[in-house]
Amino acid sequence: MFAGVDIGGTTTQVVLCTPELAVVDSQEVPTPAAEGGTAMVGAALDALGLLLARVPARLRAVGVGAAGVVDARTGRVLVASDSFHAWAGFEVTATMEAALGVPVFLDNDVNAFLRGEVTKGAVAGERHVLGMTLGTGVGGALWLDGALYEGPHGAAGETGHIPGFGDLPCTCGGRGHLETLASGRSIGARYGERTGLDRSARAVAEAAGRGDPDALAVYEAAGAAVARAILITAGMLDITTFVIGGGVSGAWTLLEPSIRAALTAEPPVSGHPVRVVRAGLGGAAVAVGAASRARTESREPLAPLRPLPEGANTATFRSG
Amino acid sequence: MFAGVDIGGTTTQVVLCTPELAVVDSQEVPTPAAEGGTAMVGAALDALGLLLARVPARLRAVGVGAAGVVDARTGRVLVASDSFHAWAGFEVTATMEAALGVPVFLDNDVNAFLRGEVTKGAVAGERHVLGMTLGTGVGGALWLDGALYEGPHGAAGETGHIPGFGDLPCTCGGRGHLETLASGRSIGARYGERTGLDRSARAVAEAAGRGDPDALAVYEAAGAAVARAILITAGMLDITTFVIGGGVSGAWTLLEPSIRAALTAEPPVSGHPVRVVRAGLGGAAVAVGAASRARTESREPLAPLRPLPEGANTATFRSG
Repeated sequence: MFAGVDIGGTTTQVVLCTPELAVVDSQEVPTPAAEGGTAMVGAALDALGLLLARVPARLRAVGVGAAGVVDARTGRVLVASDSFHAWAGFEVTATMEAALGVPVFLDNDVNAFLRGEVTKGAVAGERHVLGMTLGTGVGGALWLDGALYEGPHGAAGETGHIPGFGDLPCTCGGRGHLETLASGRSIGARYGERTGLDRSARAVAEAAGRGDPDALAVYEAAGAAVARAILITAGMLDITTFVIGGGVSGAWTLLEPSIRAALTAEPPVSGHPVRVVRAGLGGAAVAVGAASRARTESREPLAPLRPLPEGANTATFRSG
Repeated sequence: MFAGVDIGGTTTQVVLCTPELAVVDSQEVPTPAAEGGTAMVGAALDALGLLLARVPARLRAVGVGAAGVVDARTGRVLVASDSFHAWAGFEVTATMEAALGVPVFLDNDVNAFLRGEVTKGAVAGERHVLGMTLGTGVGGALWLDGALYEGPHGAAGETGHIPGFGDLPCTCGGRGHLETLASGRSIGARYGERTGLDRSARAVAEAAGRGDPDALAVYEAAGAAVARAILITAGMLDITTFVIGGGVSGAWTLLEPSIRAALTAEPPVSGHPVRVVRAGLGGAAVAVGAASRARTESREPLAPLRPLPEGANTATFRSG
């Protein structure tokens, strides 16, 4: 068995998977983010202990997907947001390996998300994919030639912070980044600018569902921005498969028509049809992706994953 | 000896190189673009014949860089611009191999340009580079992990036609592409819109040199657009080395301050310093890059090229 751990800002999810990455059981616990790295990893280990008590199995390896900037080689967290206490610098893999006696592998949560979707999710078996998570912020990860592409300094795939999306100020200090239009925080902020109301992205989606023209316009702009990021990626990397996750993708019936309309109005220059898919593993993608890395690293370090049948929930936008 | 051939719209250049890719001799002839593929390849073969008459040497292989969309595997031209007659579909490598009796390899000219610059030019030895050619249009090519990255359909690196650069109509039918601001044709067009004058990019550069505020503004916008393409690439691919060629890069003293100002005002989110370099091989980059491919393919099919010392003509923009 392989375990996958998703350490998020509010919830930690642990899954137990077969060698074929079928999820046998899962457990969620609150993330004690304010109590520091030892408590956070302790909560994950407690959840894993509960799973192993329910499902007697020999654990071979554990994968961890964590928010923030991580060093996948040393297994340490490098940079964490303000909501985490004593998390930056924490030795995640060393601490867990000492407790468990099996190999542990650490990944950025967006990389783990994409690994999950490519292994068992909506884009299973694809060799070239851009993954985007539309959450509080916007994350991105690249799958090139059948493997995660992290770039020379481990910073590839940062779609949330590329310019070319207007001129609004971004949380990172830049301007006109994708995140200023397509993140949950931005959807709330853009709606607030139009209406003076303070609403969450979910509340804006509900308002859009009731026909609120301001809410519809905000989601339309978010979808158009996602489409522009897709066109940029298609032009730069010749990628034609895209998987969209994160909380904002829950409003897929609002986003998808806008993405489709933008890509129909302005198809990729290459002429190759673009496939844009909503994430298929839901909240389990990071944990399953982390387990997938543990399997790959510990069983067959260099073997490519088998192509799997295409997932459902697929929209293909033909160009030209 | 290896030969490299650059078949451009007006001129065909052939270089003869040592196995270390030092250019021993070169020959330029007009490209008979209106007379069709047989005449064009014939002109290149004539030029090569002149070289071999001057420099007695055994030819091992020939590389060809050609404008348009080419199929590097079959050695055929797929798509050519209107200025070429009977060039799309032409069997370049088969025709030349029959005439010469040595292996011939065909590449897109922008890919050959980048291969030349990475092998012997301004970014020699770098493993991750975006190359951009600012010519009549804007071309792009990617060097990832020490090799040309062509993408799943051979269309990667199309920086000229990514959106996020305003809303002007592009020659390709799209809107707001990099090419609408940074190509030679666009520099002339943007200047014309401001002044009513019909000027080439070179004439606009000369006007800028005399302090013409409209000409200066057009080049400033071109440099800012190039900087935005650099930021997009840095964010998506974690690339920090960029080489700029093509006729417009001749106005480097106009472009460079604008690129620098834009990258200083808005540094890459990753915090890694970005190096932007003017092409170092001048007009020979495509031919030398084509010879480099011929060398790599025919001598040591899978061996990586040795890192070479860094070129001069380098500007480093530190972020943060």
